[in-house]
Amino acid sequence: MRLLFSLLLIVLVASCSTKNTNNAPTPMTGKYAIAIHGGAGNLVKMNLTPQEQEAYKLVLDSALTAGDEILRAGGSAIDAVESAIKIMEDCPLFNAGRGSVFTHEGYNEMDAAIMDGSNLECGAVAGVRHIKNPISAARSVMEKSEFILLKSEGAEAFATEQGIEIADSSYFFTQHRWDQLQEAIEDDKTELDHSGKKSASKPDHREEKYGTVGCVALDKNGNLAAGTSTGGLTNKRYGRIGDSPLIGSGTYADNSTCAVSCTGKGEDFIRLNVAHDIASMIRYQNTTLQSACDSVIMGKLKSIKGRGGCIAIDNQGKIAMPFTTSGMFRGCIDAEGKKQILLYAEEPTSVNP
Amino acid sequence: MRLLFSLLLIVLVASCSTKNTNNAPTPMTGKYAIAIHGGAGNLVKMNLTPQEQEAYKLVLDSALTAGDEILRAGGSAIDAVESAIKIMEDCPLFNAGRGSVFTHEGYNEMDAAIMDGSNLECGAVAGVRHIKNPISAARSVMEKSEFILLKSEGAEAFATEQGIEIADSSYFFTQHRWDQLQEAIEDDKTELDHSGKKSASKPDHREEKYGTVGCVALDKNGNLAAGTSTGGLTNKRYGRIGDSPLIGSGTYADNSTCAVSCTGKGEDFIRLNVAHDIASMIRYQNTTLQSACDSVIMGKLKSIKGRGGCIAIDNQGKIAMPFTTSGMFRGCIDAEGKKQILLYAEEPTSVNP
Repeated sequence: MRLLFSLLLIVLVASCSTKNTNNAPTPMTGKYAIAIHGGAGNLVKMNLTPQEQEAYKLVLDSALTAGDEILRAGGSAIDAVESAIKIMEDCPLFNAGRGSVFTHEGYNEMDAAIMDGSNLECGAVAGVRHIKNPISAARSVMEKSEFILLKSEGAEAFATEQGIEIADSSYFFTQHRWDQLQEAIEDDKTELDHSGKKSASKPDHREEKYGTVGCVALDKNGNLAAGTSTGGLTNKRYGRIGDSPLIGSGTYADNSTCAVSCTGKGEDFIRLNVAHDIASMIRYQNTTLQSACDSVIMGKLKSIKGRGGCIAIDNQGKIAMPFTTSGMFRGCIDAEGKKQILLYAEEPTSVNP
Repeated sequence: MRLLFSLLLIVLVASCSTKNTNNAPTPMTGKYAIAIHGGAGNLVKMNLTPQEQEAYKLVLDSALTAGDEILRAGGSAIDAVESAIKIMEDCPLFNAGRGSVFTHEGYNEMDAAIMDGSNLECGAVAGVRHIKNPISAARSVMEKSEFILLKSEGAEAFATEQGIEIADSSYFFTQHRWDQLQEAIEDDKTELDHSGKKSASKPDHREEKYGTVGCVALDKNGNLAAGTSTGGLTNKRYGRIGDSPLIGSGTYADNSTCAVSCTGKGEDFIRLNVAHDIASMIRYQNTTLQSACDSVIMGKLKSIKGRGGCIAIDNQGKIAMPFTTSGMFRGCIDAEGKKQILLYAEEPTSVNP
């Protein structure tokens, strides 16, 4: 059964790893760098087969490469962020887009946000059920709407008018996620993007994982961008909106400081305004990116028992990827071209060229 | 016609000015103070009759007094904030609760948030159509839900389960707001809480007003709280959510810094994370409340042509009420018991005991 799942993963991943087709502008000269995440959580090696680990890494690599190619060719940070996130949204392994978890009522309700650090323009959608790539809908809101955050059917109506690709509910159905919902309903609790039960009587046999995908990038023009996309929490109810689509909580970008995308238990990130707080420390205390991230994620977030992490990049291309959980699926290509793709905590979490 | 409207106002206001019935706990010893707002905008004296100005001031006074009584008796900042806001929500003069403006489709879609500075707990609702007091629903989310932000029918279902008072659509119908929607649709643009047309051919004959009501308070225990409630924009579409229910954008409270509630063109406040930015300046630069508010509202917000303002209070009871528009309906009772109720820009905007 597990072997079958692993094989299925390889096939799915191969279909995710499509080449980026963006038309990137003429190459320019400045530094560029990119980082991505594919969720954080109680991830331990023994809970994933080598094939499964390889499958996750392959998609992370594919997303990272797509963004990097755009940046290398002189494309914008916004283009890189959208492209990288779309690849993860299209892959059923991640809790965003196609692989989104189910709400209590059996829907896939997705949230996404994108922000351009060059002008503080931003766009977001919340609770959309039929948009193939919520990150593209968020970008469309940013570029074509006078508003920033659109929700539910209204957001879908806007996206449809703008020619954003709509997908039928069946596109988002994955048996794995459906089974997770049934388990969560049975346990009568809101689960994160987990892959196993967490009750005392039925201990974790796999992992608890906070889904969400995200990307931050610096382009050759010195522009920063951030984006985040998620399916939220398995068995979530009452139209819950998490931190991902909330500017300043799960997503923020400002050329004068940094770009940040978060993943984890959203409520903790909202309470602390994590993304904006990291930017504020850099702005007002002139601290380094790593120091700001350590202070907010490893300090404040941990102190309120917040679970999750973030990826962040500053306007010099420095990257930080701190998290309070035992793992965070993440990758980056730094300003010197060094690539890292990492899943667990014992691996390095920062890249400072 | 205008006289009739003025008389109607007096009757409505009289019905709004009900006495607070909260059971406040035993009196204690520390400083306490409170500030409220009832929206900002292009408000000029000549556009309101003396009776209309008096009507607004009467409700502001009533809301302020309700909150102040709770604080004086040793009640919590959260109780004071909720009580003051409920009085403004119940009054059809303000764009929140009963007096909410209409969306493009002819609905009243309300947003609200509340935050407790003592523990960073917060709750919010977005796009609710049938909740009499959205601020109470937000408080219920804060206290009874594992989530922070609930939307649409889901938020209403949660509120109903918690015994929050539901109201039929007819409760929120006011002819004045309906007429505003028809005018906005005719002009084919999204209007703020305006009272007249703004096209070149039909110049403003009354005022443009950014609705929203809010309250910030410091109680005798040194706890801060903030709350904001709004009907959003006349003729808004696509399920637009503004800054009011977004923690860090329109609403924030943290005992270690300040409590803030904003009003104005929400998108500008989201982009800058106005409420959290003011708190961050105090935290990281050790600046005064007034200086932080001036920097964020009169500096950054103004520089991006942002329109609106905020009320803010720090943990010493200092109050600031800056705004970039020609008016902001506001009031406060400072730590020395001095009361101010103001409508326009030429009046004092800060109270520092």
